[in-house]
Amino acid sequence: MLGGGGMIGQKLAQHLAKQPLLGGRGISHLRLIDAFIEPNIPTGASFPIVSEIADITDSKKCTELVSDRPEFIFHLAAIVSGEAESNFEKGYLVNLDGTRNLFEAIRAEKEYCPRVVYTSTAAVYGGPYPELSEDAGDEFILQPRTSYGVQKAIGELLLNDYSRRGFLDGVGLRLPTICVRPGKPNAAASGVFSNIIREPLAGIETTLSVSKDVSMIFASPRSAVGFLIHAAQLDKKLLGDRRSMMMPGVHATIGQEIEALRRVAGERIVSFIKESAPDPFAQKMVDAWNFPAFPATHARSLGFTCESTFDELIHLHIESELDGKIPGQDL
Amino acid sequence: MLGGGGMIGQKLAQHLAKQPLLGGRGISHLRLIDAFIEPNIPTGASFPIVSEIADITDSKKCTELVSDRPEFIFHLAAIVSGEAESNFEKGYLVNLDGTRNLFEAIRAEKEYCPRVVYTSTAAVYGGPYPELSEDAGDEFILQPRTSYGVQKAIGELLLNDYSRRGFLDGVGLRLPTICVRPGKPNAAASGVFSNIIREPLAGIETTLSVSKDVSMIFASPRSAVGFLIHAAQLDKKLLGDRRSMMMPGVHATIGQEIEALRRVAGERIVSFIKESAPDPFAQKMVDAWNFPAFPATHARSLGFTCESTFDELIHLHIESELDGKIPGQDL
Repeated sequence: MLGGGGMIGQKLAQHLAKQPLLGGRGISHLRLIDAFIEPNIPTGASFPIVSEIADITDSKKCTELVSDRPEFIFHLAAIVSGEAESNFEKGYLVNLDGTRNLFEAIRAEKEYCPRVVYTSTAAVYGGPYPELSEDAGDEFILQPRTSYGVQKAIGELLLNDYSRRGFLDGVGLRLPTICVRPGKPNAAASGVFSNIIREPLAGIETTLSVSKDVSMIFASPRSAVGFLIHAAQLDKKLLGDRRSMMMPGVHATIGQEIEALRRVAGERIVSFIKESAPDPFAQKMVDAWNFPAFPATHARSLGFTCESTFDELIHLHIESELDGKIPGQDL
Repeated sequence: MLGGGGMIGQKLAQHLAKQPLLGGRGISHLRLIDAFIEPNIPTGASFPIVSEIADITDSKKCTELVSDRPEFIFHLAAIVSGEAESNFEKGYLVNLDGTRNLFEAIRAEKEYCPRVVYTSTAAVYGGPYPELSEDAGDEFILQPRTSYGVQKAIGELLLNDYSRRGFLDGVGLRLPTICVRPGKPNAAASGVFSNIIREPLAGIETTLSVSKDVSMIFASPRSAVGFLIHAAQLDKKLLGDRRSMMMPGVHATIGQEIEALRRVAGERIVSFIKESAPDPFAQKMVDAWNFPAFPATHARSLGFTCESTFDELIHLHIESELDGKIPGQDL
């Protein structure tokens, strides 16, 4: 697993440690790899797990990483949206060249065609969108409006081509914004959508510096793990030549997020959100998305599922990250 | 001009020599660059034209090429479809890395933002298409089914991103198959669509080794030059963030091409076409396209125009390449 130190990587590793099955067979071993931090090893696994620092921008390292020919590769490693926008070179180096290094290393192994689960993003889309959001379906053009989205869309195209040529067996998941994202804010421009829920629930003031009209598409960390596991096990015959697809999600504006927070946690919690003047960089990033409610028909037909309301996303966060209680208040 | 030795590059150079205006101003000079052959210099130009061999896969060479800061760059250089499919590495090296080298060289020049006209291709599309071909419009997803198409779709994404970031001012043209392509067959899998017209008209037997039901979208060499000139001069304000678009074209199956040839040139000429058993490689390539009649609404609204019937394409070829006469017969 590449990007095993990230939030989703860690959740996925914990899940695999608890339910050590993939494709109907027991997991023999797991390697957690990350360029930035040595991934934590989840406790209680019945199979060996190793954790290491390695950088996919080093093509030799990629060769070494695939030399033990894992059957499943989860490629979650990426420079996130905000950083890919502020550091043009680094975004392309990791998100494009790194991904290509990995795919090339796999191609170089003979008679080897692992299932590669690649995390793409809803940010491969960019407006203007059709008037009816159900028309932004599986055939809607990918015209990203951020460098991150462009790099991920290129990764999807490579995934298709390497799959079509038989070098690997890819599945790409256009992930909604993961919400509520636990832990500290990261450099993803989409962090704001979680910050305004997570911080108030923890009794911490948070600044809202983008417009409340911006809309987004969301799924819980639990759903993200579910998508990844489901993608790893999907029957190749159902995939065809288009290996990436938009995952289902919950559509909401920031205003609707705040209303959900009010319903779930009350006015006292909402009062921790302080509205400020828009931050031009952040506003520009979220404006580049401002997603419609993608129907995600193809993914749903293949059995990918997620939550139905934003309230559920908040409840899930309280349950899994706050032991079921909002600090300082009885639910 | 990169790819200046190719068929379209040569036609464009000849046109510019005759009509030395671009963007309402006289042309001061023209550099014709090609990796494979030293481009012919058209005669009669009122401005200096240099011709040289240079390879965009050499990033230092790209730096040198843009160091004199041309106002317009026509990037026509590419490994064509058949070769990009049979030589995976070479296709990515030239079509992806070469294009990126060029864009990076432009980005490295400070306070410089040239108009870059990039030839993409209808092969960025891949089926399945919507039932109604008018639904394969400007918002239809790009999911190529050849490595060439993938490389060109990636080039389009880079063109968008580099344009959005202000590093260059790109326009990408998804060219139909150029037909009737003069000269010798090249390694483009789309060559067959021209071969079955050009060779019989010259009194030469030609083998048809793909199904007559395959459909394609066509434009004449003259239209291709028209697209390039129009793209160079297009007002940036009309372009928005989506810098590439499908060009208008004439839709026809191979069967319809042959019917048009019969109407224009008669049964004797058609008899030079010998049908053989399908060639699996060629058939697979054309099956990967099998294009619908793209409406090309956006390009048409911006003033890009082309022929209306396949008969016209044949007449144009007879006029410009055969001095208006079919050898061995009075028209």
